[in-house]
Amino acid sequence: MAENQSTDMDDSEDVVTLAHGAGGGAMRSMLQDLVVPRFAGNGAATDGTEVADDGDTPRVGLPELDDGAVHPVGDDGALVVTTDSHVVKPLFFPGGDIGRLAVAGTVNDLAMMGATEPTALTCSLVLEEGTPTSDVQRVIESMAATAEEADVSISTGDTKVMGNGDVDGIVINTAGVAYLDGNAPVSDAGLDPGDALIVSGPMGDHGIALLSAREGFDFTGDLESDVAPVNGFVGAAMDAGRITAMKDPTRGGLANALNEMAEKADVGIDIDEQRIPISGATASAGEVLGIDPLSVANEGKVVMGVDQNDAKAVLEAIQACPGGKDAEIVGQASEDHTGRVVVDTGFGRRYLSEPEGEALPRIC
Amino acid sequence: MAENQSTDMDDSEDVVTLAHGAGGGAMRSMLQDLVVPRFAGNGAATDGTEVADDGDTPRVGLPELDDGAVHPVGDDGALVVTTDSHVVKPLFFPGGDIGRLAVAGTVNDLAMMGATEPTALTCSLVLEEGTPTSDVQRVIESMAATAEEADVSISTGDTKVMGNGDVDGIVINTAGVAYLDGNAPVSDAGLDPGDALIVSGPMGDHGIALLSAREGFDFTGDLESDVAPVNGFVGAAMDAGRITAMKDPTRGGLANALNEMAEKADVGIDIDEQRIPISGATASAGEVLGIDPLSVANEGKVVMGVDQNDAKAVLEAIQACPGGKDAEIVGQASEDHTGRVVVDTGFGRRYLSEPEGEALPRIC
Repeated sequence: MAENQSTDMDDSEDVVTLAHGAGGGAMRSMLQDLVVPRFAGNGAATDGTEVADDGDTPRVGLPELDDGAVHPVGDDGALVVTTDSHVVKPLFFPGGDIGRLAVAGTVNDLAMMGATEPTALTCSLVLEEGTPTSDVQRVIESMAATAEEADVSISTGDTKVMGNGDVDGIVINTAGVAYLDGNAPVSDAGLDPGDALIVSGPMGDHGIALLSAREGFDFTGDLESDVAPVNGFVGAAMDAGRITAMKDPTRGGLANALNEMAEKADVGIDIDEQRIPISGATASAGEVLGIDPLSVANEGKVVMGVDQNDAKAVLEAIQACPGGKDAEIVGQASEDHTGRVVVDTGFGRRYLSEPEGEALPRIC
Repeated sequence: MAENQSTDMDDSEDVVTLAHGAGGGAMRSMLQDLVVPRFAGNGAATDGTEVADDGDTPRVGLPELDDGAVHPVGDDGALVVTTDSHVVKPLFFPGGDIGRLAVAGTVNDLAMMGATEPTALTCSLVLEEGTPTSDVQRVIESMAATAEEADVSISTGDTKVMGNGDVDGIVINTAGVAYLDGNAPVSDAGLDPGDALIVSGPMGDHGIALLSAREGFDFTGDLESDVAPVNGFVGAAMDAGRITAMKDPTRGGLANALNEMAEKADVGIDIDEQRIPISGATASAGEVLGIDPLSVANEGKVVMGVDQNDAKAVLEAIQACPGGKDAEIVGQASEDHTGRVVVDTGFGRRYLSEPEGEALPRIC
């Protein structure tokens, strides 16, 4: 049990740093060293593919570091559960706000497990004393509208107020739960060599739009966050073919998502860089800011592995849905360079590495 | 739908104040005016007693302002869902810490809906940059131990880091979900005239211990928070007799819980003050601090309405369990003074009113 395990925290790393919240290597190492060993004893399976026959044991738990957990319940049902806290700054940004981000983020994490019809969301607000009531109202309205768009009800919540200066503005936590009736959940570890990799639309819009807004840059063009629920087109994709693995490229962007998928499935990934959709506005702004659009968060996009025989059908299904018209097949999984992502730039090949450190604090 | 409703917010109340987070009247009015009308359109029932036959419609939703929501799923199952954010200061206090508080709080909210065997908890951490890793580790260990005590797994989570000064220390959100297989959930609105009211143990320990620790008072005696999961003795109570309504007297204490139960069920409540258990240490400290132990939070206690014929059996079942030995029958529901709580002090009778304002910020 947890009590008898020692932690492997580096002694020099004795305080929490912004890098721990960035979704890259530092984050994963903190979770793996500090959190997972302590919670894994609470009935979690160590192998995401093993189906436990005990209702108390999650089929997918914390050790898998997937987008959510899966618990068998009843005769042949399963609960998919996920959570996210949102600390984004500014609260309102081009293309969205913290409320839309919170609802879409949680709906999308459920969708990444194959649960495209969520049962319920929770909404917990931590408010700074002195926050204008009109801001709270605007955020609540945005959450309600986004929940309607995703066809889910927000049915329970909590509100805390912290003193002036104890918290900056508004922090929102949402958790989501979906009941799966007999359907197998989708993992982010299921890639097989030969699977096609589909990206559902332009990469990097959320991260680049956020940073530009925060820094006060006024780029020409339509620089907007992509924040949106993806459960609609993910459901259509699942109906159209066999999805072997899914991930939403949020913190750490596409680079992080692909590296995790390669590592967890023990396959290599080959990407054709010229096929990755990136909007002109995001590409230019990224260049000026010195930030790679492949390493920053998306909040309305999906990267999925698809059985190669189904790739075309799945692509067309996504392209026919709102939010999916720019979807592309960007590469495939291979038996070579396992655990690594290789990008063909058109001029040569390079490894796409996982972002380290904190390019963009408080981006979601 | 929500979009067409105007808010009834008082114009003079244009910023969030600490009173909005105190769990009393200001809190309820903010929720009722600002949050509920916006989210209620998302499929929520307006009447907690009505069983919807549509899986998307919660049987108990936000408008009921209960401890959680209930969603029918599958053939005859139901999901109970709840959430809480914790911002307590200090992080470590006599009798517990923020981690134990978070796990117990969520387990207890589920138990208040009759779901004493939770399926899963989520754990979302918001950490201030610079927080000692050893503090995070201590909190995680406490969460794991409390989850084991409550027999629930923590199976998914999220971690965010905010800059130094953007958040004070550690904020923890937990959400919990339980699958009920055919059993009817318990509401907090089900009191009938004649029902006995049982309190599971001494009142006010958490609030008084917290304030004393924060202010640096060194009272003699055992002043300790009561923070603990209650699902064990609540399960035993439900097996022993018919529970008509339950609530955990957290923010706003017993005074708040009883007033809510009276108001929601449209009954009166009569309480014999001398039968309310209060520890000597808490009573003395409360007197010195000028704080009524009946108006501050408990974190390991329950107040329940019980069919009067079952009251003795339920009381004995609770008393036989860990955490329940000091349980008492403290009063009964009546047809008189509906919506109000009348206390017999031994010298006369007075209304027990709901606490207003913010006696104790950041108590949970």
